[in-house]
Parts: sequence; structure tokens; C-alpha cells
Amino acid sequence: MVLGGGPTGENLADRVHAAGLSAVLVEHELVGGECSYWACMPSKALLRPVTARSEASRVPGLKDAVAGPLDAPAVLAHRDAFASYWKDDGQVRWLDSAGIDLVRGRGRLAGPRRVTVDGGRTLIARHAVAVCTGSRPVLPDVPGLAEAKPWTSRDATSSKTVPGRLVIVGGGVVGVEMATAWRALGASVTLLVRGDGLLPRMEPFVGHLVAESLAEAGVFLRTGTEVREVRREAPGGPVTVVLGPEDEIVADELLIATGRAPRTEDLGLETVGLTPGGWLEVDDTLRATGVPGGWLYGAGDVNHRALLTHQGKYQARIAGAAIAARARGVPILESDRWGAHSASADRHAVPQVVFSDPEAAAVGLSAAEAERAGHRIRVVDYDLGAVAGASLYADGYRGRARMVVDLDREVLLGVTFVGPGVGELLHSATVAVAAEVPVERLWHAVPAYPTISEIWLRLLEAYRGD
Amino acid sequence: MVLGGGPTGENLADRVHAAGLSAVLVEHELVGGECSYWACMPSKALLRPVTARSEASRVPGLKDAVAGPLDAPAVLAHRDAFASYWKDDGQVRWLDSAGIDLVRGRGRLAGPRRVTVDGGRTLIARHAVAVCTGSRPVLPDVPGLAEAKPWTSRDATSSKTVPGRLVIVGGGVVGVEMATAWRALGASVTLLVRGDGLLPRMEPFVGHLVAESLAEAGVFLRTGTEVREVRREAPGGPVTVVLGPEDEIVADELLIATGRAPRTEDLGLETVGLTPGGWLEVDDTLRATGVPGGWLYGAGDVNHRALLTHQGKYQARIAGAAIAARARGVPILESDRWGAHSASADRHAVPQVVFSDPEAAAVGLSAAEAERAGHRIRVVDYDLGAVAGASLYADGYRGRARMVVDLDREVLLGVTFVGPGVGELLHSATVAVAAEVPVERLWHAVPAYPTISEIWLRLLEAYRGD
Repeated sequence: MVLGGGPTGENLADRVHAAGLSAVLVEHELVGGECSYWACMPSKALLRPVTARSEASRVPGLKDAVAGPLDAPAVLAHRDAFASYWKDDGQVRWLDSAGIDLVRGRGRLAGPRRVTVDGGRTLIARHAVAVCTGSRPVLPDVPGLAEAKPWTSRDATSSKTVPGRLVIVGGGVVGVEMATAWRALGASVTLLVRGDGLLPRMEPFVGHLVAESLAEAGVFLRTGTEVREVRREAPGGPVTVVLGPEDEIVADELLIATGRAPRTEDLGLETVGLTPGGWLEVDDTLRATGVPGGWLYGAGDVNHRALLTHQGKYQARIAGAAIAARARGVPILESDRWGAHSASADRHAVPQVVFSDPEAAAVGLSAAEAERAGHRIRVVDYDLGAVAGASLYADGYRGRARMVVDLDREVLLGVTFVGPGVGELLHSATVAVAAEVPVERLWHAVPAYPTISEIWLRLLEAYRGD
Repeated sequence: MVLGGGPTGENLADRVHAAGLSAVLVEHELVGGECSYWACMPSKALLRPVTARSEASRVPGLKDAVAGPLDAPAVLAHRDAFASYWKDDGQVRWLDSAGIDLVRGRGRLAGPRRVTVDGGRTLIARHAVAVCTGSRPVLPDVPGLAEAKPWTSRDATSSKTVPGRLVIVGGGVVGVEMATAWRALGASVTLLVRGDGLLPRMEPFVGHLVAESLAEAGVFLRTGTEVREVRREAPGGPVTVVLGPEDEIVADELLIATGRAPRTEDLGLETVGLTPGGWLEVDDTLRATGVPGGWLYGAGDVNHRALLTHQGKYQARIAGAAIAARARGVPILESDRWGAHSASADRHAVPQVVFSDPEAAAVGLSAAEAERAGHRIRVVDYDLGAVAGASLYADGYRGRARMVVDLDREVLLGVTFVGPGVGELLHSATVAVAAEVPVERLWHAVPAYPTISEIWLRLLEAYRGD
């Protein structure tokens, strides 16, 4: 029994059903979840035209052609199509074809293995209940903010019109991606961040380059800010963001993208001895810790291991396999670290692509994280613009790459790229990090010339001291 | 002592110099070689605007902007810059900075370890002579062809003007890439191939898709053809290509791209017991076989292992390390298959990207090659257009992926992608194939959502029977 029909829940249900169990999915909103309607799909549909234009503008023979603004109505219509017009018919058909039962309504635990739907019908799980309810944006505690009805990520990805002036609070992925998209669609954008840079979970050079590029696109970036008060006099009217005495910004919309919280407040967790509202603690098989009987699982954002769609889907595959194995009485060994029932990649090789302009992509540990974790490391940096394939890809290519090498085992702990067209390059690093390929062997993985991938040769040469 | 100053020769000289030996490079043309002036660099400078336009034309908000023709003079000027205006000053400066001596002239062996330059000055190698003279295009034996002065790859990549009508003979990489480029720049292009499809060394579906796309771009493709005669009445005048009785094509230029031969005719190979004009046979350390004393090496196209710039550079790194090791008296073990002195990737993991529209990329063995080699395999195909990241990348995305799995070892023998934007995706496959990463472990290399790289998940799911 799966609570929550986003990509994680759908995949988990599919996995256990494919393994011969029956699966039921309980969802009170749209099947397909945040990703399909208010995150990955619509945001990337908004962003792809931005990067395509940016790249075309850096190529001779096209520069003039793409100098004008994007056709915003065309892009928004495209986004609507990629969000399936906020209807889940396609997803429901898929559930049906996959043999998964759908129960529409709000699922709530009512003691071990028991789930009530909308406070009425009670379902009992034979093998397991998996919580895949995801996360929601959190509004910080700022006077006037809630009353001003700011945009959250849902509004930012689904807005039918381009705001004239948009203020964004938060320099993480949502803030950066939405600043990129709405600026390219014509909005005047101000990006307010509390710290001193963007994308603070990646290597520092990533945020520097993205900030530089956003500034060139005309985004106003203000670091070290704190929103003290927000005022919106009339619904639909302008919103005033107060940063300090005599420091106010007036805009048409305000997007808050400062953090997320687990969707666990109203799940009945208290009926099984857990605390509502918190992140769900799980082990590497995605089974909730501290629940007798071992029938409760949590996959996706809700367990706070890695708040990314692809990682939720990965957890769903692992959890589905683990549930099915245990249902058949197959023991799962703790030692089976990279086997079919352990979400080991969550701890070693989480990839992320930020669809900014330029793209940012990273997997595994940053240098700072590796040091904090006590690894003896060497950091190798290289200017992506010095790679022939990159200079052919875009005039005046600016980018950077870093690999973090574990000196004790001579494997990569993490790799980061920032620059045009690096999104698809990341998976090479993900394979290297997840498979713990020795540096000596990577020397034989020859990058095709002249591609941006030749950065691998440069990084390895630099590491070997060549 | 290195004969031939292309990327392979330059890298080999650099490697031995970095290892503490002295290196001298003998070159009678431009330092930087075919790749810098008449192959990779100019061809990709011509092709990148084509793919950038093609991709922009499949994105909403830009379609109309890029509907017009490419600005050919701008593209050609860009190409000129990327070919360094056919001057090698930059390369010579690099040699200088790397501490490599340059001797301008035609180097020729004159017995063991001896090289004469332009028939005069004699140089004697202390440790080794490396032949890195590459390959040249071959004109087939067709009446009138040589007299008609057809284009070879050099002319096709360096032409200062766009021919009105261009006939290309040969459906390999050069033929396909040049058809793509010159058609986009405005030429009327006819592509003649002897067999039944394009890019015959890749999986068959690659050639099908590229042919379909070339046809849509307006290229006339004729398969199963044989050129029987060529006539050009006046220099610079039209050229007539005779395919059969009453089957003639008249064009302004004719590009012959049907094959290459080693540049070994005039190297004095006979003075050391080898046959001039043939490919140079070498072992996995790139040392020529059948030459007493073991002082002769051959790297790059000339040894026929893999006629690709990046593979030549790889061989240069391996050969340079082997020469330096032997100079120090370090034994090189046969068993050290993936070590620093064995070009093992030449036999297992050669990557290639064809910069056609769409791009084609492959590494390792095709299904047919794997079967011929006696492997017990399973072939997994997947429609790239069905991957969310691909459909976001380009409207109506068409593409395909194949992985060839060795069933005995559960590792990948080869991977092929064809579709927009797959060029940078290839290195993920190259790492997997070169490192022989078990399929079970690839399951933990999670592709970021929504990228085209998610094809990896689909292929692995299909293989596992999920």
C-alpha cells in the first residue's frame, strides 16, 4: 500500500507489482505528483528554450537570428502541454496498464498496516505500507508574508502570465531556475539570497559562474539579505518586500523558495509511534526505523535522504525490491552494500543537474563535504573553456570542472561541472563515482574528440601530474 | 624521435619529454596535423551551427527565429579561425613551451634508429623512433577521377565558398558530416554510397535515422551506386559523375570520401625490413612488430588500430609511457592489460561521435561485432524519444539507444546512441565499457531527471526484465 502517487509512489507500486505482489496507491491530488505538474516537467519545459537560445546565440551564423526575446506565449503553451494541462488521465491510464489499483482520497495511518481513506474506508496492507508523500515548500516566519500570498514553486512553474516584476527569495535550485526562466520570458527579476552566493550545496565556483551569467541576463542579485516584512495592500496588487529601513522592493509577484518540509503532518504517524511533521527516518532498504514489525517504508523526499525525483525513483526501485524480497522470506544482508536492496547511491553518488544557463551538474561529494567526512583527498580543477570541444560548442565558452579524488583508494568521491551543455556529461561522472572506478582505469576511458567530455582527459592528466 | 607532428606525434613527444627524455618532432607540413586544419577542428566548426540551429528549431519560442538559412560567410569565417587560418604558429609555440625540438622537413628512416631529413641531415634516436604520420584519403580507381581533381576531406573542410551543387561519394563519417554541413550552408548535395546505408560501421539503425534526417534536410541520397567514370571538361568547370548508362549527375564539386591509406610510402620502411605503403603493425605498447631491437613505434592512424584523433592521442600517451619505461629499464608485463603501458581500449572501448544531425555516438562492439567475436550477448534497444528528458530537449525527438551485454560476465560490450544531443552522453558508456562495470552496479548509477541520460535507466530496466 503506497501513500502518495508521485513518481516515487508510482515506481514503488510498479516494482512490487512486477515482483508479484498486489499494489494500491492512495492519492488525494493529481497522480504523477509534484514532478509532473509543478516541478521537473514544467520547469524544464520553461528552461529548455532558454538554454537553446543561449547556445544558439553563441554560434556563428545564428547569433543575429536569436537575438530577440523568446516567444513567451509559445513557451508557456509548451509548458502547459508538458504539465499535461494539470490533468492526470495519462498517469491513471499508466497505473491501470501496470495493474496498480488507485484509491482517490487522503490516506492516513490508523495503527500498524492500517490506512483509512478520507477518514472512512479502511485498507489493510498484507506486507507493507510505503509513505511517498514527498515534501512541500515552507514559508519562513516573516510578518505579512503568508497574507501576501506569495508564489511557491507551484505557482512559479504554472503561472499563465509573465509577471512584470518578480522578486525571488532563495538562491537554491528553484530560485536559480525560476530566475533564469522568468527573466528570459521578459520579467524584471530580483533574486534575494540570505548567504553570499547561489547554489550553496555545490562547489563554490558553480554559484559564482551562475551568478555572473544571471547578472549578464539582467537579473538583479542581492546577497546577504533578509526579508523583514512583506506587504500586499490589495489581492493581485503590487507586493512590497522590506529588507531594511528605507530598503524596500516593489514587485508584482514574490516567489519564496527557501526550503521544504516533509508532507507528514496529517498521515497518522502518531498511531504507529512516530512524530507527525518530521522527516521519516529509514535504513538503506528504505524501511522506517523504530516501527515494530518492519512493515513501514518511506521513499522519496519524505525521508530527507536526497530531495530529487530521480533519487526518489531509485529509492522506489530499491524499496520495491526489498519489500518483495521480504514478502518471499528472502533475507536481506547488511553487507550487500551495492546489491539490489540497498540504496547505497543515496550516500555516495547522488547526481543533480541544475538547468540554469549555464547548466550546473554535480555528483557525489564536494571537496568540503569530502573533507568533513574525513577523506584524504586531492582536488583537481580545470577550466572547461580550455577544452577544444567546449570552445567549438559555444563562442567564449565559460565553465569549470572539479574532481575530488580519494587518495587512499584512488577513486573519485565527487565531480562537478558548470558550463553550457554539461547536463548530459554528468552521467559519465555518476558511473565513475557509483562504480568506484579506479583512476588508473579511467585513464583508458577515452573521450571522443572534440567533445566537451575531453575535460576528463584534462582532469586525469592534471591529477597524474602530466 | 617522432615522425609526424599531428596530435598523436605531438602528444607522444610531450609524454616522453615529460618523462625525462628528449624529444624531437619531424614534420614537413603544418604542425598540428590533419585534425587541426583539415579534419576535426574545421569540420566541427562547420557542423556546430548546424546542430545548434536544428535544436533551436525544435524548441518553442525559437522555431520561427531560426527558420532561415545559416549565415554562411559567418560560419566559414568561424571555421577559418578554428583552423588557425592554416598557420601553425600556435602549435609551434606549444612545442616550444613543452620543450620539444622541431625539425621542419620530410623525415625518412635510414636503417635502425636513423632518420634523414629531406635527404640530408641525419638524426639518430637514442631510445626510439615513433612513426605518427597518419593517413591520407585514397581515390578509387575510376576513369577520369584523378584528372577531374575532386575534393578530398581537406578541400571539403577548407573550401572558401559554398558549391552550388556538391556530389559526395562515400557514406562514412566524412561523407555524412560534409553532406550535413554543406547542405545546411546552402549547397545542393547528392550523397552516393556503394552499400545500402550510411555509417556502416555503427549499428544499422544509426544509418537509417541519419539518412532520414539528411533526406528531410534536402540531401539526395542514392544507395547501391558505383561511380563508373568522372569527367571535368575545364578546370573549375562542372564535373559529370557517371553512374551508369544514361545515369549521370552534373555538379560543381565532387568529394571523394571512400577510404584512407597509411602515410608510409616514403618513410624508408624498407631500410628496416618493413614494406612501404602498408599499415604499420604494432603490439599493445604500440611497438612495431618484426623490427629487431624494439626501437620502432607506430601510433595513430598509421597502425590502423582506430583511425580517430582521440584514439591516436591515447596511443601516444601509452606509447610515450612505454618508451620512457623501457628507457629506464622498467619491464613491461604482458599481463598488465589495463595498465599504463597497454592500449587496451583500442580493442575494447573505442568511442566515436559523428557530428551529424542528429548526432551518432558509439563505443565498443556493435551487436554484429560482438557476435562475430563469439560473445554470448543480449541486445537491448530503447526508443530515445520515449525518455522524458529527450522530449523536453527537442520537440518530436527521434533517437534510439542500444546496449550489448556480455551474458557471461554481465558487463557491457558496446553502447550506441543516435539522436539530438547524445554526443556528450557517450562518455558515460565509455566509462562503463572501459571499466567493465557490472550491470548490477550500473543500477546504482542514477541518471539525473529529466535528462536524456535517463535512457540508461530504461535500458537497464529492459535488461533486467522489469
